[in-house]
Amino acid sequence: MHTTRKGDYLIEFLPYIKEFAGNTFVIKYGGSAMVNNELKMAFSKDIALLKFVGINPIIVHGGGNEIGYTLEKLDITTKFHKGLRITDEKTMEVVVMVLAGKVNKEIVLNINRFGGKAVGLSGVDANIIKAKKLLLEDVDLGLVGDVEEINPEILINLSKSGYIPVVSPIGFDDTGSRYNINADTVASSIAQVIRAEKLIYISDVDGVLDNDSKLISEIKIKDIDKMIDIVLTGGMIPKVLSAKEAIENGVKKVHIINGKKQHALLEEIFTDAGIGTQIVR
Amino acid sequence: MHTTRKGDYLIEFLPYIKEFAGNTFVIKYGGSAMVNNELKMAFSKDIALLKFVGINPIIVHGGGNEIGYTLEKLDITTKFHKGLRITDEKTMEVVVMVLAGKVNKEIVLNINRFGGKAVGLSGVDANIIKAKKLLLEDVDLGLVGDVEEINPEILINLSKSGYIPVVSPIGFDDTGSRYNINADTVASSIAQVIRAEKLIYISDVDGVLDNDSKLISEIKIKDIDKMIDIVLTGGMIPKVLSAKEAIENGVKKVHIINGKKQHALLEEIFTDAGIGTQIVR
Amino acid sequence: MHTTRKGDYLIEFLPYIKEFAGNTFVIKYGGSAMVNNELKMAFSKDIALLKFVGINPIIVHGGGNEIGYTLEKLDITTKFHKGLRITDEKTMEVVVMVLAGKVNKEIVLNINRFGGKAVGLSGVDANIIKAKKLLLEDVDLGLVGDVEEINPEILINLSKSGYIPVVSPIGFDDTGSRYNINADTVASSIAQVIRAEKLIYISDVDGVLDNDSKLISEIKIKDIDKMIDIVLTGGMIPKVLSAKEAIENGVKKVHIINGKKQHALLEEIFTDAGIGTQIVR
Amino acid sequence: MHTTRKGDYLIEFLPYIKEFAGNTFVIKYGGSAMVNNELKMAFSKDIALLKFVGINPIIVHGGGNEIGYTLEKLDITTKFHKGLRITDEKTMEVVVMVLAGKVNKEIVLNINRFGGKAVGLSGVDANIIKAKKLLLEDVDLGLVGDVEEINPEILINLSKSGYIPVVSPIGFDDTGSRYNINADTVASSIAQVIRAEKLIYISDVDGVLDNDSKLISEIKIKDIDKMIDIVLTGGMIPKVLSAKEAIENGVKKVHIINGKKQHALLEEIFTDAGIGTQIVR
Amino acid sequence: MHTTRKGDYLIEFLPYIKEFAGNTFVIKYGGSAMVNNELKMAFSKDIALLKFVGINPIIVHGGGNEIGYTLEKLDITTKFHKGLRITDEKTMEVVVMVLAGKVNKEIVLNINRFGGKAVGLSGVDANIIKAKKLLLEDVDLGLVGDVEEINPEILINLSKSGYIPVVSPIGFDDTGSRYNINADTVASSIAQVIRAEKLIYISDVDGVLDNDSKLISEIKIKDIDKMIDIVLTGGMIPKVLSAKEAIENGVKKVHIINGKKQHALLEEIFTDAGIGTQIVR
Amino acid sequence: MHTTRKGDYLIEFLPYIKEFAGNTFVIKYGGSAMVNNELKMAFSKDIALLKFVGINPIIVHGGGNEIGYTLEKLDITTKFHKGLRITDEKTMEVVVMVLAGKVNKEIVLNINRFGGKAVGLSGVDANIIKAKKLLLEDVDLGLVGDVEEINPEILINLSKSGYIPVVSPIGFDDTGSRYNINADTVASSIAQVIRAEKLIYISDVDGVLDNDSKLISEIKIKDIDKMIDIVLTGGMIPKVLSAKEAIENGVKKVHIINGKKQHALLEEIFTDAGIGTQIVR
Repeated sequence: MHTTRKGDYLIEFLPYIKEFAGNTFVIKYGGSAMVNNELKMAFSKDIALLKFVGINPIIVHGGGNEIGYTLEKLDITTKFHKGLRITDEKTMEVVVMVLAGKVNKEIVLNINRFGGKAVGLSGVDANIIKAKKLLLEDVDLGLVGDVEEINPEILINLSKSGYIPVVSPIGFDDTGSRYNINADTVASSIAQVIRAEKLIYISDVDGVLDNDSKLISEIKIKDIDKMIDIVLTGGMIPKVLSAKEAIENGVKKVHIINGKKQHALLEEIFTDAGIGTQIVR
Repeated sequence: MHTTRKGDYLIEFLPYIKEFAGNTFVIKYGGSAMVNNELKMAFSKDIALLKFVGINPIIVHGGGNEIGYTLEKLDITTKFHKGLRITDEKTMEVVVMVLAGKVNKEIVLNINRFGGKAVGLSGVDANIIKAKKLLLEDVDLGLVGDVEEINPEILINLSKSGYIPVVSPIGFDDTGSRYNINADTVASSIAQVIRAEKLIYISDVDGVLDNDSKLISEIKIKDIDKMIDIVLTGGMIPKVLSAKEAIENGVKKVHIINGKKQHALLEEIFTDAGIGTQIVR
Repeated sequence: MHTTRKGDYLIEFLPYIKEFAGNTFVIKYGGSAMVNNELKMAFSKDIALLKFVGINPIIVHGGGNEIGYTLEKLDITTKFHKGLRITDEKTMEVVVMVLAGKVNKEIVLNINRFGGKAVGLSGVDANIIKAKKLLLEDVDLGLVGDVEEINPEILINLSKSGYIPVVSPIGFDDTGSRYNINADTVASSIAQVIRAEKLIYISDVDGVLDNDSKLISEIKIKDIDKMIDIVLTGGMIPKVLSAKEAIENGVKKVHIINGKKQHALLEEIFTDAGIGTQIVR
Repeated sequence: MHTTRKGDYLIEFLPYIKEFAGNTFVIKYGGSAMVNNELKMAFSKDIALLKFVGINPIIVHGGGNEIGYTLEKLDITTKFHKGLRITDEKTMEVVVMVLAGKVNKEIVLNINRFGGKAVGLSGVDANIIKAKKLLLEDVDLGLVGDVEEINPEILINLSKSGYIPVVSPIGFDDTGSRYNINADTVASSIAQVIRAEKLIYISDVDGVLDNDSKLISEIKIKDIDKMIDIVLTGGMIPKVLSAKEAIENGVKKVHIINGKKQHALLEEIFTDAGIGTQIVR
Repeated sequence: MHTTRKGDYLIEFLPYIKEFAGNTFVIKYGGSAMVNNELKMAFSKDIALLKFVGINPIIVHGGGNEIGYTLEKLDITTKFHKGLRITDEKTMEVVVMVLAGKVNKEIVLNINRFGGKAVGLSGVDANIIKAKKLLLEDVDLGLVGDVEEINPEILINLSKSGYIPVVSPIGFDDTGSRYNINADTVASSIAQVIRAEKLIYISDVDGVLDNDSKLISEIKIKDIDKMIDIVLTGGMIPKVLSAKEAIENGVKKVHIINGKKQHALLEEIFTDAGIGTQIVR
Repeated sequence: MHTTRKGDYLIEFLPYIKEFAGNTFVIKYGGSAMVNNELKMAFSKDIALLKFVGINPIIVHGGGNEIGYTLEKLDITTKFHKGLRITDEKTMEVVVMVLAGKVNKEIVLNINRFGGKAVGLSGVDANIIKAKKLLLEDVDLGLVGDVEEINPEILINLSKSGYIPVVSPIGFDDTGSRYNINADTVASSIAQVIRAEKLIYISDVDGVLDNDSKLISEIKIKDIDKMIDIVLTGGMIPKVLSAKEAIENGVKKVHIINGKKQHALLEEIFTDAGIGTQIVR
């Protein structure tokens, strides 16, 4: 009277299907997983499967290197301030074209090829992202913005109707200006407003590592403050702090996973051990 | 850039979740899987999980050795004719007590312990199984019956409301008589009337075996007639013929699996290769 | 310009139809009305008619003499303590078989013969009756239980869908044990949880009698305490006290009627004078 | 073990409640029952009770002597042709005032006093009765009309919402003219269009009588033709013929009852024997 | 690149369609607009158009000179006290006949001729207007009443179902008496109970005029008290005070317009400037 | 008793509100109305107003001169064949960026500034436009496509939920290729599939002109064939033929109007005379 190996895996995976059915996950998509073609296809397949089994993914994408590349082709020179591109009106037009025209529509096309029904939107459509100018003391960044208000109605409507929203991080304000906003920020803001079950950052690292470079599987938000400067360093600090904020505002869990591992998204979601770092209350 | 093993399994399993969500499976439960305690628990867990992931199982159970055992205790002697127990009114009362009282309620209790919401019914409840006397030329079998008409309304209602119906194979007629009916027959009749996606027989063998005792994974109903006497023998013949009838009357697939293997039910349903024999159009 | 006698009766009866349409009555069924065949048929007809005219009856039945009778046949000896049968596991199996298998299914069959759609359930099905051991100081009663929690969901669902639930007073606990519970207690607990319009005890007496053996038609719960020992005596005391508790917990009226009078149930419900005793706030 | 008399009546009456619940009865109200005050009250109570128990009555009323009486008071002289009042515009204004203003509102008020929610309408309201001029060869009757088309939408809407429509038999045409129409004709036309379960004429006689003046309880429409001139005479002929037409156009049964007997309406509907004559297919 | 004049008007009118869609306007209809035939037709067309574009008008009408005229024809003499007709039972019967029979049905017929679906009701129908006797210190006015309670259910139901309710200002009390009530009062009471968007008085003047006889387009309720005796005089005072009360009880705006100007109703509602006086919070 | 001019206009316009409420209009937006800023604003306001009054506009836009302009900036040279740009993969990427990124999002932003809730989509999103290569005998046009199949589900869903879909004419095929399709063709295909009430071409001329350059207000499709070469010439021939095809496939009316006239769209829709040419069955 033996047990099959696949039977055991099914016993492990199936309860998560039940647990997450009908839940909404906001997924920030960027980095290598958005560049390498094999990974792009694996990601698209994973997203289509998530939707198939009753989960509602909402994707927020970055721009990878496409914006810089197109600006260069168009002989438009831009300056940077602390990693942020100073964006004038002419640059902004290119940003919109590349994000909402090129990158967004390619993601949509790929997901749809695996049987999903993706719908590409920018933050301008249906007034999703009302933005304000990101103000720095010392420098005027131009049309670099921050989230003022999220209007999630259409994202919820589309999700309920079987579609997968794919959002470009472009905002608008009442004067008709458009703003380029950090995609991590947009993903986190949307997740908070709709009280998403999960906010998942697809990055280029395995997750949060400890001082011996070993993966930390789970972090409680009450431990984050004391981990800063001891365990957490560099670019991981703002990511973990934004995760903390998201959880304090109603998101159940935040995950940081490695987009370079195929199907890491599925394994993080459907297995007991997971594959990256999860941040919880 | 490796793929995880679990990720691969997820890619294999998940599409079946989508495919079967909302479908109804009629499962004949009997044999060793109903006697051995470890297998009983595994079966109960599998059924609860099926319901969790959106499949609607309807269970029809047999009586195992319990009827004979109780009749013996009560000093009631019965005779058999070609494997069928000649059933007078006094015997019938015991059959109802054992099937609808003892066996049925134990199955219900076990499924509920794994978080399911099972509801035990006999064919008398809500007029589910209208029966007629099984007529043989040479002998009067008494209250051994056959299915006259299935009234599946309550099974559908309960399934839609999140319950798992567990049915004892007892029928009634207009005179108020009750009949003992073969559980395979009842499962097949219900599956046909509700046009179930699957009818699954949990038996004590791996499925249909060929002349070299190797499992045949799939049989098309058009090939069944020529397989008889060559490949199919003994008790497997009526089972396969009833499978053929079920498919001709609207059931999508019939499966014969080995209840002695833990979680065989899940593996048959959610994997590409399956584990037993499936019979298809 | 005369009035017909039937016309007058209609004028008397019809307002009750309106008043009770859509209401739920919990009816404890036991005693002579469950033994004598003519009375069984009259009761079944009354229940089917109640459902026809829009009332939702929920029946809780006792076991009459059937449990003792079957234990005897099986040579199982049991002891009693203050009228309660000390119940070990082996005895409990017989209790379940007799209540949920024999008695329950016979009531269901009879109601269905008069056009009702009865569905027999035990407290184990759909987790209706979560039980706990009934603890006495001096003696261990074994699997004699008390109500811990009623989960009425399926009773309400079935009632709304046109079915008549018939409940055996068997409970379960988290360890998988089953308990034999007093049917009056189960009826009262269900009536309280669903805030039934009426809780009706079908007994073997006309109702509460005064010291001159005259029927008392109505008792207010505020008068019950002072009636004890003066008017109320013997077995009627716990019944009337449980009625008081039911009313204090949301049941509108409790009735005690004589099951030996045919159609007493209808007359109590639909006439101005009633036929038994009603206990009200 | 006796049966109560009221219990037996309940067993007789209750099945009709079930049978007629949700059905619509069109009731022509006129004659003595509309004049005598005690009968008016009994009728109003009966109608309110019918609605209470789930039947949807629609009432069409005549004008009794009120029209003639008011014309006289206003010194308007009118001529008759074969019992029909020749109606000019000035007369028609009085007809509308008396039917839709005086008679209709009084019926409404009385039913409402017994707890009904009656709503008085004329055939002009919501375009219920489109009419045409009743054309005779030899004489111009003026604004005496016939039914051209019934628009029953509002009657159905109000009935479903718990109201009791009370209709004055006044029609309109596309030129803006209004017509006085026979109330029997209007009741029958409405009953046909909505395929009423029953069309009930409240008259001043017990029903159809045979040659020995004995009441005929039931007439089949296939027997009507041969009964004319032998059994049927005088004013009963057009009533019975219109009943036949109604049944041929989808009404289930037509009843003729005596409005002088209090609660005859209820007794005709809810008893096996009835009290008047019913005409059936 | 010119703009058409009609285009400009459309830009002006269309936003009001959106603003008022689904709103309910209570319109008191009386005075010259109810007497002159051309104005009657224009009013009927306006009402039908309002309903067409999604507004729900509820009309309350007065009686014009019809009551006095008919009383005179019937040789019934009545006395007046401060403009109120002392009304005995015989007079009341005429009032009901004229309002609910003659005037109401004519309004209904006219609106329906323009494609509306008007339904005429009195306050007796569906218990819309529960009334009480209007008590004066020095004189008994008989059946002159005041509003005790509005039951607006049927008005809301009919409005939602596409009908236009037309209400005669007649009330009832529990003793079965009927009362003649001032139509302005009834309109205001209904508007308050249903929290109407607008209460519109169709009068014989352009609106509220200032001391130079110039129209005042808008009055705020906080300015009303100081306007009395300075700007407001005569019959306009009670109208403006009742408007104030209506707004304090939930009506959004009250309008007073001149029924002698064709389509004033539409112009008041759909243009920026309006045509009469609007009273607002 | 005068009539106001605005009152008269209201009487003219309002019936169209009723007529078109809930209807869907497909509007091809291009030419001067998409370039001149004042006209852009007027168009955006008109679209927002149409939605406000219950009409569901679906907009299909062209690319104006933006594609050529951007290709030039990027130093990508393209050749033309009979007015169609030969489109390789590199050019197609620019087409998608400009149409779906630049032009589409600007239209969306403008409509939203007037209170609309526009949502920009390409034919790739939600699989709206399945395309095939446009095959010419003599030359390979590359990724210039034709409509293979319209999947209008999301357009209908969004319209019903209060959004205004704005569609870029880009299609996809099963191989993952994207195609540039003529916007007139896409507008007509969508209008046919959803059986739109109106298909409106916003062009740079007043409509169809006769030989004396006078506007023809209405053309019946049965007259089109004989008008060709006599009245119809040049670029108007394909437009009128496509209008004919649309009407033969279920579109009610096709309009050709001059986008250079402000609010021509509103005037064509809401006035009796219209402003351009309408083509009807």
